[in-house]
Amino acid sequence: MVNYFSSDFKLGILGGGQLGKMMLYETRRYDIQTLVLDPSAEAPSKISCNYFEMGDLMDYDTVLNFGRKADVITFEIEGINIEALKQLEKEGKKTYPSAATLEKIQNKAIQKEFYIDNNLPTAPFKRFDDLDSLKESIKAGMVELPFVWKSATGGYDGKGVSVIRKQEDLNELSSGECIAENLVPFKNELAVIVARNPSGETKTYPVVEMEFHPTANQVEYVICPARIDDHIADKARKTAELVSEAFEHVGLLAVEMFLTEDDEILINEVAPRPHNSGHYSIEASYTNQFEQQIRAILDLPLGNTDSKVGGIMVNLVGAEGHEGEVQYENIEKIMKMDGVTPHIYGKKITRPFRKMGHVTIVDKDLNKARETAEKVKNSIRVISKK
Amino acid sequence: MVNYFSSDFKLGILGGGQLGKMMLYETRRYDIQTLVLDPSAEAPSKISCNYFEMGDLMDYDTVLNFGRKADVITFEIEGINIEALKQLEKEGKKTYPSAATLEKIQNKAIQKEFYIDNNLPTAPFKRFDDLDSLKESIKAGMVELPFVWKSATGGYDGKGVSVIRKQEDLNELSSGECIAENLVPFKNELAVIVARNPSGETKTYPVVEMEFHPTANQVEYVICPARIDDHIADKARKTAELVSEAFEHVGLLAVEMFLTEDDEILINEVAPRPHNSGHYSIEASYTNQFEQQIRAILDLPLGNTDSKVGGIMVNLVGAEGHEGEVQYENIEKIMKMDGVTPHIYGKKITRPFRKMGHVTIVDKDLNKARETAEKVKNSIRVISKK
Repeated sequence: MVNYFSSDFKLGILGGGQLGKMMLYETRRYDIQTLVLDPSAEAPSKISCNYFEMGDLMDYDTVLNFGRKADVITFEIEGINIEALKQLEKEGKKTYPSAATLEKIQNKAIQKEFYIDNNLPTAPFKRFDDLDSLKESIKAGMVELPFVWKSATGGYDGKGVSVIRKQEDLNELSSGECIAENLVPFKNELAVIVARNPSGETKTYPVVEMEFHPTANQVEYVICPARIDDHIADKARKTAELVSEAFEHVGLLAVEMFLTEDDEILINEVAPRPHNSGHYSIEASYTNQFEQQIRAILDLPLGNTDSKVGGIMVNLVGAEGHEGEVQYENIEKIMKMDGVTPHIYGKKITRPFRKMGHVTIVDKDLNKARETAEKVKNSIRVISKK
Repeated sequence: MVNYFSSDFKLGILGGGQLGKMMLYETRRYDIQTLVLDPSAEAPSKISCNYFEMGDLMDYDTVLNFGRKADVITFEIEGINIEALKQLEKEGKKTYPSAATLEKIQNKAIQKEFYIDNNLPTAPFKRFDDLDSLKESIKAGMVELPFVWKSATGGYDGKGVSVIRKQEDLNELSSGECIAENLVPFKNELAVIVARNPSGETKTYPVVEMEFHPTANQVEYVICPARIDDHIADKARKTAELVSEAFEHVGLLAVEMFLTEDDEILINEVAPRPHNSGHYSIEASYTNQFEQQIRAILDLPLGNTDSKVGGIMVNLVGAEGHEGEVQYENIEKIMKMDGVTPHIYGKKITRPFRKMGHVTIVDKDLNKARETAEKVKNSIRVISKK
């Protein structure tokens, strides 16, 4: 067993956003040395790591040279140079999740085909090399409107996904590789986080339920536990575990799913890292997702994934019409409410719908937490300074 | 209302030990800029603050010049230059707790007299300018053995306190100002943390119960809630609130108390800062003590002090016979236990009884947590590398 605690061991983290920042609280708590690579001089992870390097996560040499300084390498964002990751593995560096797993997930078209190949339930789709090919297929009657367009690469925070209802909607899309997915009517969006360490130990978090902002395609509330029947919850957890196994995934895998009107579970997409849908765990769970991620990738025993109390997470996104130096309006007001914990990511500039922070609301009574969450949502605003 | 979040506001923290380190997790979560002053180049708080300065906390100029860089000043250790703090206040800096409060607490003889002056219950005592005066009083029959000797200044982690049972015990004592306190037989040692902000809002944590190591005079288990009758708990909380009011204290005040065999509450001593007896709150409380400290000193609304679950804290102190580079034996073993969270402070060198970290054990069933705590205590050992 490697001695991680207060030792010379170094964990390299590719990406220095809010997910990395929250992971660093846990590495600090274990006194594990960390190196962070991020393109931004104002990365939320810049403080709290032992060594920060500014650099392009998609650049082969940058990632390779950074990775060589670490003993174990992980990432908090999917958009990283996969060839550099593969080379680091060849050189004997442990990278968790592995380059092979990330490669299957990075490209949404490949990810979708992986589900089909592994008999995992997902909405029917067609894959296209570019937007023109998709348009031709529509003309030829091979793809019918409405459908869900997804860019194969680069999607994030609701970008790269659009519901195409009429011909003109196609004008808004980027030109690259994409998929057209059947628009399946669903009752609910669910997510399950599965943790897995290299020794094969697996622990699964409870099912959470997501409510999306009607226009921005970003999560508005994440509710744990999801208010669904136990047998549906079991099915969702079982599906997520199958997905994790199929990917031979190490670390956290967040599996987003649709619950259809026929109570079928369909896999939407996965994220091989801590995830927005798991932020509630910091306040609500026995082991929060960031600690669990550290435990998993370092092959330490996994922690209890149960909740102490009901948890709801509200994303703090930049208000429409506001761009510039950030200001959190009414934050004192929400801090007066019981069980409310704000998390400010430390981004200096707000933009409409930019994720600037989140607020967790916990209560032994989930309905009460839901009421408080709505008060929080209606109070706090992320605006720019006048 | 000052805009603290992602702004230019700067909080200065005197002292960079584990208490400061854990406070910094919360300032990071609020994106509040922090400056830390500590004499050690390996201070646990060195990483995670925005600016670290190495310097002597007892040196007037060092503290003054450091404090001038901050907007609000606090401390995580009592041993700081009080004159510099007073000067900073004169210059308009907000220092919480105030210099006046700290001055009454820094010297244990003055602290004890303060209780007497304010009709607050504490064990009878006599004050001495130096050890020789104490020895003369013993000879003259003015002080009878056994009694508790306490150094007026510099006591920490069980140092500076001794039970004097026989004449020879006096040989071990330091020569400075001290008190001789009646040895009152007690059933239990309790502690209550009171939070107070400049606007006068007050919130009180539940009573915790402390079990001490039989020889090292350091806390071994902190148990929340204390397993005592409700009316005793009410009396302890009420007493702590009276102490906080009397000191006109801002921030956290940890009040350590004895429960005598006659069910009387006697104040032992206070700490004007986050306290070892409140570490359980990170995992067990709706608002942990470090977040509460930040809320209090920045005059933000105080958070809910209730517990989500039962919590027990075990200190990780250096094993006897071990001095040198630290190693945490069997940490993987305790991480397998449900509800167990280790905190490693990041000190590189272990020494017998040095506080190197702590472990929190939470469970909805406090008795179960107590069982796990004992397993933790019997498993993990803080040793030096061979």
